[in-house]
Amino acid sequence: MKEELFVKKLASILKQGPDVLEGPGDDCAAIDLGLEELLLAAADQVVSDVHFEEGRTKPAAVAKKLLNRNLSDIAAMGGRPTHALVTIALNPVDKAWLEDFHKGLQEAAAPCGVSIVGGDISSSKAPGHFCSLSILGRVAKGMLCLRSNAQAGELLYCSGSFGNSFLSGKHLDFSPRLAEGRFLAGRFTKAMMDVSDGLLKDARRMAEASKLALEIDLERIPLAPGATLDAALSEGEDYELIMAVPQAKAAELERLWPFKETPLTCIGKFIEGPCGEAFNRKGERLSSGNDGFDHFNEKDSR
Amino acid sequence: MKEELFVKKLASILKQGPDVLEGPGDDCAAIDLGLEELLLAAADQVVSDVHFEEGRTKPAAVAKKLLNRNLSDIAAMGGRPTHALVTIALNPVDKAWLEDFHKGLQEAAAPCGVSIVGGDISSSKAPGHFCSLSILGRVAKGMLCLRSNAQAGELLYCSGSFGNSFLSGKHLDFSPRLAEGRFLAGRFTKAMMDVSDGLLKDARRMAEASKLALEIDLERIPLAPGATLDAALSEGEDYELIMAVPQAKAAELERLWPFKETPLTCIGKFIEGPCGEAFNRKGERLSSGNDGFDHFNEKDSR
Repeated sequence: MKEELFVKKLASILKQGPDVLEGPGDDCAAIDLGLEELLLAAADQVVSDVHFEEGRTKPAAVAKKLLNRNLSDIAAMGGRPTHALVTIALNPVDKAWLEDFHKGLQEAAAPCGVSIVGGDISSSKAPGHFCSLSILGRVAKGMLCLRSNAQAGELLYCSGSFGNSFLSGKHLDFSPRLAEGRFLAGRFTKAMMDVSDGLLKDARRMAEASKLALEIDLERIPLAPGATLDAALSEGEDYELIMAVPQAKAAELERLWPFKETPLTCIGKFIEGPCGEAFNRKGERLSSGNDGFDHFNEKDSR
Repeated sequence: MKEELFVKKLASILKQGPDVLEGPGDDCAAIDLGLEELLLAAADQVVSDVHFEEGRTKPAAVAKKLLNRNLSDIAAMGGRPTHALVTIALNPVDKAWLEDFHKGLQEAAAPCGVSIVGGDISSSKAPGHFCSLSILGRVAKGMLCLRSNAQAGELLYCSGSFGNSFLSGKHLDFSPRLAEGRFLAGRFTKAMMDVSDGLLKDARRMAEASKLALEIDLERIPLAPGATLDAALSEGEDYELIMAVPQAKAAELERLWPFKETPLTCIGKFIEGPCGEAFNRKGERLSSGNDGFDHFNEKDSR
């Protein structure tokens, strides 16, 4: 069974209450508290020698990556982050590491207005660091962006550039697209997602959630410095946003886009077609043995 | 530096926004969303061969312990749980384990009305299972119970019995005291805490948070079957509640206590005295080299 199907099977075990507008499966869960804004909630982790190099990556950089991965999920929903909880299991229990981690976490959290409100630290028998963070955020109901909201004919845009994230170090030092997400949400898009597992894989996921296919203009994909097209399509950990923009709004969006340091590029179009499939301009199906970072495949883990 | 002081040092690094009524340091954080009820949030973890026996404890039992540890934190604030997020790092990636874990989690969550709204699964280079759960809950402002709220002269009560939790298996199969906590909160107590690290250690923490000392009546401490007094005082993982009850309310509380299967026992009194110290009825200071489960001390880890 492929990872994708298995994760869906696990999610189907979990039953959601009536206040859960969006449960497992999107970048964040969305919960109706009876307020004008919805509560957003997500959790993600960074693990030694999977998401960072044990003994080499500095604890502050580990903390920053952990927080920013989660902030990227909030950005993808059009939300603003508010609070976080963090747990760490580690061996050895290195107090200097923990202190530097917490300082790095606070440094990354403060400019985004995030309060780290609690957590837990435990020793571990196995060597390494196992860090988990849950993020909370808020989004106005009219701004909530879901992967499943893309419509046929809408254009696929992306922020930033793709590929080479591990070699360049971007995977440790990226800017979650919070301001960009909030600019886009509601006004220019209702369907957004962050790219963490590879552009092609994640774009196909978004198409699948929207029961659509995708036409991707490979020549327009913005390549990060040093990245090949294949790396841009498949490597992952780019932490950029992809979104569906109605054609009628595209010109206005491009004219008003205020983020000079973050390119915004139209790279394709959502189309009627086989659910979750992607094609190039010639109509050839895009796929490969390595079409994205597979969490469960240890060979691909970094 | 002792664990206690070090954890406080870490917490002091984290700056809280104005909506955070209670940050790190209590069983849960309490956040003011502008609703009648406060939002509660906490996170806790279970780790192979620290909190359960790798390869021997069933995945459903691991999941249940993970959730119930967190529910016990909600109970201690007087709250009701609502939503949870769960992350798992594991090696090997055993799909049957993951499926049984999720089924066990759902089974434990459903009767408490908790929706598991999201999370993450990652492979790990190190062998074992590293599971983290964040719980959200709600509590009416007037029912919020803090460890720091105990007043001099108030009686120290406890639910249930103590000791032998590892040998008896209670640490895997306990009932978080949610109904008990809500019965007590506001009406009979403003100061409550759950006992996870050992009765003496946790009772002293509560006294310290309230800037008080404690007189403990050792003869009245309810011992779990097979437990010695020393085990009851120091072993931990009891997941019972301790609370401060005004003397004027004690008789009414004992008369109205509706939980026939959960004993409620007066075991001492909060008194003016050296902050965080505990004494027996003869005025002798209570302490030992092993006065509670120390997360950071690998020798004591289970």
